[in-house]
Amino acid sequence: MRVVDLIRRKRDSGELTRDEIEQLIAAYTRGDIPDYQMSAWLMAVVLRGMTREETASLTEAMLHSGRVLDFSDLSGKKVDKHSTGGVGDKPSLVIAPIVAAGGLKVPMISGRGLGHSGGTLDKLESIPGFNVNLSLADFRRVLETCGCALIGQTAEIAPADKKIYALRDVTGTVESPSLICASIMSKKLAEGIDALVLDVKTGSGAFMKKIEDAANLAELLVETGKRMGKKVVALLTDMNQPLGRKAGNAMEVVESIEVLGGAGPADLRELCLELAAWMFYLGERVKTLDEGKKLSADLIGSGQAREKFREIVGLQCGDVGVVDDPRRLAHARQTLEVTSPTGGFVVGTQCEQLGVACVVLGGGREKKEDTIDPAVGLTFHKRIGDAVERGEPLCTLHYNAENRLVEARRLVESAYRIESEKPKSIPPLIHRIIGA
Amino acid sequence: MRVVDLIRRKRDSGELTRDEIEQLIAAYTRGDIPDYQMSAWLMAVVLRGMTREETASLTEAMLHSGRVLDFSDLSGKKVDKHSTGGVGDKPSLVIAPIVAAGGLKVPMISGRGLGHSGGTLDKLESIPGFNVNLSLADFRRVLETCGCALIGQTAEIAPADKKIYALRDVTGTVESPSLICASIMSKKLAEGIDALVLDVKTGSGAFMKKIEDAANLAELLVETGKRMGKKVVALLTDMNQPLGRKAGNAMEVVESIEVLGGAGPADLRELCLELAAWMFYLGERVKTLDEGKKLSADLIGSGQAREKFREIVGLQCGDVGVVDDPRRLAHARQTLEVTSPTGGFVVGTQCEQLGVACVVLGGGREKKEDTIDPAVGLTFHKRIGDAVERGEPLCTLHYNAENRLVEARRLVESAYRIESEKPKSIPPLIHRIIGA
Repeated sequence: MRVVDLIRRKRDSGELTRDEIEQLIAAYTRGDIPDYQMSAWLMAVVLRGMTREETASLTEAMLHSGRVLDFSDLSGKKVDKHSTGGVGDKPSLVIAPIVAAGGLKVPMISGRGLGHSGGTLDKLESIPGFNVNLSLADFRRVLETCGCALIGQTAEIAPADKKIYALRDVTGTVESPSLICASIMSKKLAEGIDALVLDVKTGSGAFMKKIEDAANLAELLVETGKRMGKKVVALLTDMNQPLGRKAGNAMEVVESIEVLGGAGPADLRELCLELAAWMFYLGERVKTLDEGKKLSADLIGSGQAREKFREIVGLQCGDVGVVDDPRRLAHARQTLEVTSPTGGFVVGTQCEQLGVACVVLGGGREKKEDTIDPAVGLTFHKRIGDAVERGEPLCTLHYNAENRLVEARRLVESAYRIESEKPKSIPPLIHRIIGA
Repeated sequence: MRVVDLIRRKRDSGELTRDEIEQLIAAYTRGDIPDYQMSAWLMAVVLRGMTREETASLTEAMLHSGRVLDFSDLSGKKVDKHSTGGVGDKPSLVIAPIVAAGGLKVPMISGRGLGHSGGTLDKLESIPGFNVNLSLADFRRVLETCGCALIGQTAEIAPADKKIYALRDVTGTVESPSLICASIMSKKLAEGIDALVLDVKTGSGAFMKKIEDAANLAELLVETGKRMGKKVVALLTDMNQPLGRKAGNAMEVVESIEVLGGAGPADLRELCLELAAWMFYLGERVKTLDEGKKLSADLIGSGQAREKFREIVGLQCGDVGVVDDPRRLAHARQTLEVTSPTGGFVVGTQCEQLGVACVVLGGGREKKEDTIDPAVGLTFHKRIGDAVERGEPLCTLHYNAENRLVEARRLVESAYRIESEKPKSIPPLIHRIIGA
């Protein structure tokens, strides 16, 4: 195999064999192929695309670059959920305990915030003491003990993805459905799961702004997972406005605990019930989706889901006191309200801008080395379709440092589109189910 | 400037400013931009293309990455010729002495064989002692003394091109008209010339197989040169069969000396006269092309061109004895004739295959480290349109080592297309003149 021939073939829209892709990824992971050849190949992939066969081969090659976990000796089906990311996107914190409380196993390997989107690991770390860096042995122990464990990617899991992702980030080769699919699925399939529910976001606050792009990615993810013998379904969900009422790491933990307690905003609660229902259904815990939704609601109603969350926090060394008293979490010292400059109706939000505002306040990283302020964030008072009066609050900024406030405020102010007419349609929570 | 933004812009078919391109090339040449970012950008350029503005900016940035020679204090216009390369492509060896004998200066910086094509430097080095690695000071001295000097690219000339070319070679990013243009023109414009004649080859033995691709490249080269204030013209010439009757380093020197002596094959002689005429015309030595052609023929007829060649060889430490006695050059110990399997007419050749056969015999490099056997090569007995009888020789292989003979023979045997009907048309020597 000459690497330059593989690069040229992809450049000329040709197809690579399973064997060629496997060799390419293995050699790159070993360090036998230099970054400059891999980045040229990645750019050719971005611009020429890959077939579904190639995408599956790439996913498998990246999966097998590291350890593939095996929990088949543990009772109960192993299921997980993955979201492509957005603003206020916190269902993982709610549904992992629900599904574990329902008797399935949830071995969840999550990521950190990326760009304008939040990350499950950053949210969990806002709970004092919570350790997301478990060894794989501890991961298994926690999973066995309470049915769920929440960790970050370890060095053993899909090292090819780690290396390729770092390269893509600095070479403009992130935006490829095939590369995104291989990156997501190689990590998720390494979890040793039986089934996977994908939450593919679309809209102004998602990475895929256009619904067709999101649908294409969802189809690719589903097909790739199914090829590997997994049960997979994708929910194409709306991200034209934040999910729930809160964005910011500790603030999102608070809102998640609210939902686990039977309260919380309707949209967030509804999406969590849907996602959990699909996990129960694919995990063969229930026979219908309705049954799954009812089971999820019951596990919330009975307090079992909330109790499971407390158990997970405790086993991962977090302060379990926060479950009953969320005021133990960090909170910002100051707030600023952004009000509506005019009366009318909210007809749309520049949702990515709201996510960036949260990052600007310190809730995310602009550079890899940045540390996160878990306390800061945004509270959203109005959703698309809501009436608003002149001077009425649209959004509250929770901040600790004055110096970035001007920029964050400007972002939030310009993120809301207010018009005199009520919008004809309001984005649905779920656009489509793919792969069912 | 964030490099990743420039990569992304080009990936999305955007345009880069002159300033951005200049900074990119300067930073890469300094080593401030890693190879993996440059190769991703190069792949984006290959697949998305560059505007003429961008191509000119890239050429200029690469030109100014190193020294730009200045021979304005030397008498006579400075002119050069560049060919995009082919099989048996030896006019440089003939026309450089012709044009210098005619009173112009020819500061020629040439390259080595690339792929299936031969290189002027490799041919010159088949002359015992000939030194192509002159310092820039010696380059000037030889140029001043005899009107012509023939050297290879030095470290001072267009270092950006050297670095980028090496990267393109291993990352599948050679095939871009803009990158090819910038590479050629940055080196040629560094020669401090007033005018440049381009020999852009097209056909089965050229890098640009399709005439439209070659024409596009020719137009780009001409426009880029003119933007820099140079007189430039491009001859779109045919490479559907070898030029002349010989390929192989020493063998091509022999054939060049034949043409300088007033003999040699008609096609080679004709193309040399045309190219030299254009150089005289652009160099304002003559008022018409016809006058230039006549002057060139006269310089051959009077023996002055041949004498000039002897002078150049002497000044560059080569064995001048070869000019009178080409048998002093290396020649292969053995020959093998490839004969026609059938009677009919030669209707076409897979010319690149003939070039590869020459490389396989040892006349070129398959890897950078390979050493060249100057003696080996091919003699071509039939041209397109020629009648051939069954068993009549098509091509003679001149070889020293048996071990590669089978492959070379197979390549040559399958390179000739013989049919019973005489072909309706024979490729012209020159397809088109661009930029006149």
